[in-house]
Amino acid sequence: MTIDWNQRYAQRLEWMTTSAIRDILKCAQAPGLISLAGGWPEAELFPTRQLAEIAQDVITNMPRESLQYGLTDGFPPLRALLAEQMSAQGIPAEMGNIIITSGTQQSLDLLGRILLDEDDTVLVENPTFLGALQSFKAYGVAFRAVNMDDDGADVARLDPTDCKYYYALPTFQNPTGVTMSLARRKQLIQRSFDQDLVIIEDDPYGSLRFEGDPLPTLAALASQEAVSRGLTGKPSNVVYCSSFSKTLAPGLRLSWVVCPKEVAEPLVMAKQGTDLHTNALSQVIAYEFLRRGWLPEQIARIRETYRVRRQAMLEAIEEYLPQGIYFSRPQGGLFLWVELPPEIDTVALLPEAVEQQVAFVPGSPFYITADGKNTMRLTFASVRPELIREGIRRLGEIIKRHL
Amino acid sequence: MTIDWNQRYAQRLEWMTTSAIRDILKCAQAPGLISLAGGWPEAELFPTRQLAEIAQDVITNMPRESLQYGLTDGFPPLRALLAEQMSAQGIPAEMGNIIITSGTQQSLDLLGRILLDEDDTVLVENPTFLGALQSFKAYGVAFRAVNMDDDGADVARLDPTDCKYYYALPTFQNPTGVTMSLARRKQLIQRSFDQDLVIIEDDPYGSLRFEGDPLPTLAALASQEAVSRGLTGKPSNVVYCSSFSKTLAPGLRLSWVVCPKEVAEPLVMAKQGTDLHTNALSQVIAYEFLRRGWLPEQIARIRETYRVRRQAMLEAIEEYLPQGIYFSRPQGGLFLWVELPPEIDTVALLPEAVEQQVAFVPGSPFYITADGKNTMRLTFASVRPELIREGIRRLGEIIKRHL
Repeated sequence: MTIDWNQRYAQRLEWMTTSAIRDILKCAQAPGLISLAGGWPEAELFPTRQLAEIAQDVITNMPRESLQYGLTDGFPPLRALLAEQMSAQGIPAEMGNIIITSGTQQSLDLLGRILLDEDDTVLVENPTFLGALQSFKAYGVAFRAVNMDDDGADVARLDPTDCKYYYALPTFQNPTGVTMSLARRKQLIQRSFDQDLVIIEDDPYGSLRFEGDPLPTLAALASQEAVSRGLTGKPSNVVYCSSFSKTLAPGLRLSWVVCPKEVAEPLVMAKQGTDLHTNALSQVIAYEFLRRGWLPEQIARIRETYRVRRQAMLEAIEEYLPQGIYFSRPQGGLFLWVELPPEIDTVALLPEAVEQQVAFVPGSPFYITADGKNTMRLTFASVRPELIREGIRRLGEIIKRHL
Repeated sequence: MTIDWNQRYAQRLEWMTTSAIRDILKCAQAPGLISLAGGWPEAELFPTRQLAEIAQDVITNMPRESLQYGLTDGFPPLRALLAEQMSAQGIPAEMGNIIITSGTQQSLDLLGRILLDEDDTVLVENPTFLGALQSFKAYGVAFRAVNMDDDGADVARLDPTDCKYYYALPTFQNPTGVTMSLARRKQLIQRSFDQDLVIIEDDPYGSLRFEGDPLPTLAALASQEAVSRGLTGKPSNVVYCSSFSKTLAPGLRLSWVVCPKEVAEPLVMAKQGTDLHTNALSQVIAYEFLRRGWLPEQIARIRETYRVRRQAMLEAIEEYLPQGIYFSRPQGGLFLWVELPPEIDTVALLPEAVEQQVAFVPGSPFYITADGKNTMRLTFASVRPELIREGIRRLGEIIKRHL
C-alpha cells in the first residue's frame, strides 16, 4: 500500500495561508491570557435559561420537526417567519426566497459552488472576511481589491471589468468594524444595476448596532432601485446573507440566505448534495425563540454589553497606544481595527504579545494584496472592560518598544 | 438588470436526474398514504425523554461547549469516545483519526472535495446510494459499475483499471438491503492492497443488525491485512464513515469519518471552508448520550422493532406479490429490494401506486447504468406491520394488473 496521499491533495492546501498565525493563537489558550483575537460573541450573554426551556419543550412536543430528517431549504415555519421579518426590513421576501443554511460559511460556500466559475474574478473589500476568501478560493476564482477607508469600500473607484460578483460586508465589517456610508451604498447599487454586477451582501452584525442610526441594507436599496427603474418582477441583484450566530448562539450553526428563486433553486440542489439539510433541532429552537418574541430583548442585552466594551477599548487605545495612529470607531459589531506606524509588523509582534499574555489577530491575512503588515484586528465583544483596558495597556508597551 | 441566472448554473443542474420522481413522492404526503418510500428511521423510536433531559442539562451546564463556536474537527470528548469505540470494533483509531461531520452526506461531499479530481473514475456498486452519486458527481467524476448479487458486490469481477477509489456500502446496503459476504469482503481488501485502491466504506446501518452474525467491517479487515503484510504505521486504505442518524436521530445531523491523519488534515481544511464546524449542541448531546451509556439500549429497541417489521414485509411479499420474483432478505437496516418481471417499469407504476395510496421508490435512479427499470426499494423501518401488510397487498394488485 503506497498511496501518496500528499500528492493527491497538495494543490488544495495552497488556500490555507494563515496556519502559522492560527497555530500561535491556538497555543495562546493559557489561563491569564487576554485574548483580543476572538471572532466569537460573548458566551455569558447566551440566553441559556430560555434555550434550555425551548430545547426541552420542542424535543418533547415536536420530535418529528426537531429530530427527523427535514427539508433541504429549511424548516418552513422558520422560513416563513424570516420572510416576514426581512420584508419588514425592506427586503421583500416570500418563503421561497429564504434558504436556511448551517452558518454563513456554508451560505458563502454554496453560493460559490453554484455561482462562481474557475477563473472568475470576484470584487472584494480589501481587507475582508478571511472565511469568504477561503470559501471562494476553493472554486478557483481570483480576487480584485476594492479599497477601504472610514466610509467603507471606495465604490466610486472600483473596477468591475470582467467581474460578475462583488462580495460586500457593508455593516460593521469583519475585520475593520467600518460601516459603508449611505452615499456609497447608493452609489454601489447604481453601479450594480448599470453594470450587471451581482452583490453578495454578508450582514451578520447589522442588528448589533449600539450607536448611531441604522442604514438600509444593500438588499433593501436594490429593491427600491428596482422599483424606481420599473424592474419589478425581475430577480434582485443582491443575494443577502445573515445569521443567528451573533444574536442567538454560533454553536447552533444557523444562517439564512435571501435570494431570487432563480438562485434559491440551484442553492437547494447544491445543499442537498452537501449536507442534505440544516440541523433540525437548531432550526426549531430558533423558530420557537423568534415566535415567542424573545429575540429583541436578547439583542438589546448584547448591544448594551458591546457598547460598554467598545467604549472601554476606545478609551484604552487613546490612553495607551501611540498618538497619531489610526483606529476605527465602530458603531456596532464585534471588532475594531488598528493601523500602527508603518515600521511595525504585527505578524512579527504576535509571539511577543502572546508572551506578555495578550493576543490579537494580525491584519495582513485579511488582505488580498501585500498590504496591512502594520494592522491588527481587535475584538471587544468577548472581553470584560477591565481586561480590555489591561490588554491594550500591555499592547501599548510592546508597540512602543518597537518604535 | 438582465442577469441570466439560468445560463450561469445550467451545467450544474445536470446531476439532478430524479426530480420528477421526487416531485411525485413530495405530492404523495396525503393522509392515508402508506409510504414504503421513506429513507428515514422510525420517529416513534426517537429517545425523546432522554434527549430532552440531556439538552436541557448541557445548555444549562455546558453553555460554552454546546452554544459557542467549536473546533472544525469536532468536540474533542466525542472524538475521543468514538476513537475508543472504533478501536474496540477492530478499527484502530486515535482522536486524530476521527472527524465529526454534519451527516454522512457531508462526509462524502468533503471526501469528494479533497480526494476526487475531475475525470477520475470511481467504482460504485450498481445500484448504490443516490446521495453518494450526487456528492461525487459535483466533482466531475465518472463512475464504473460493480455488479451486485445476493452476496453483495461481485468484487472478483470488478475492473479497477485507472480507478483510485471504490465507494462501498457493504452492510445492509442502500438501496438493496444486501450485505457483502465475508469471503467477498476479504477478497475486496486483498485487491485494494494489491492494486492501491482506496475504499470509502459507508456504514450507517451496521449496528442495526437484527438477525445473523455480525461481519467485520472493511476497515477492520484492512487493519488486519496491514498487520499481516507488515505494513503497520502506513496510512490505512479504507476511509470509514458512520452516523448517528439511524441510531439517535437524523435531525441532529451528526456523522463521523475514521481516516488516516493524511486524510484528516485536508478534510478538516475543506470542512473549515464549508461550514466551520458541526453543530455544537448536537455534538454535546450525542456525547452525553454515549457517556451515560444509553445507546446500546436505544439500538436494541430499534433492532427489535425493525426485525418485526422486516418479517411482516417478507411475509406480505410472499403472500401478495407475484410468485417467482426476486426480493432481498436483509438481516438489518431499513430497506429491502424487489425485482419485478422485466415487463414492469416501476417509474411508470409509481403514479398509479400513489393513486392507490401506496408509495415506493423506483429502483432505476440508483443505477449508473440503464438497468433496474423493473426494481423498487421498499422500507420497512418507518411503517407499522399492519400498514406494511396493506401496502404490499395494494402493490401486489397493481403489479398483477400489469402482468
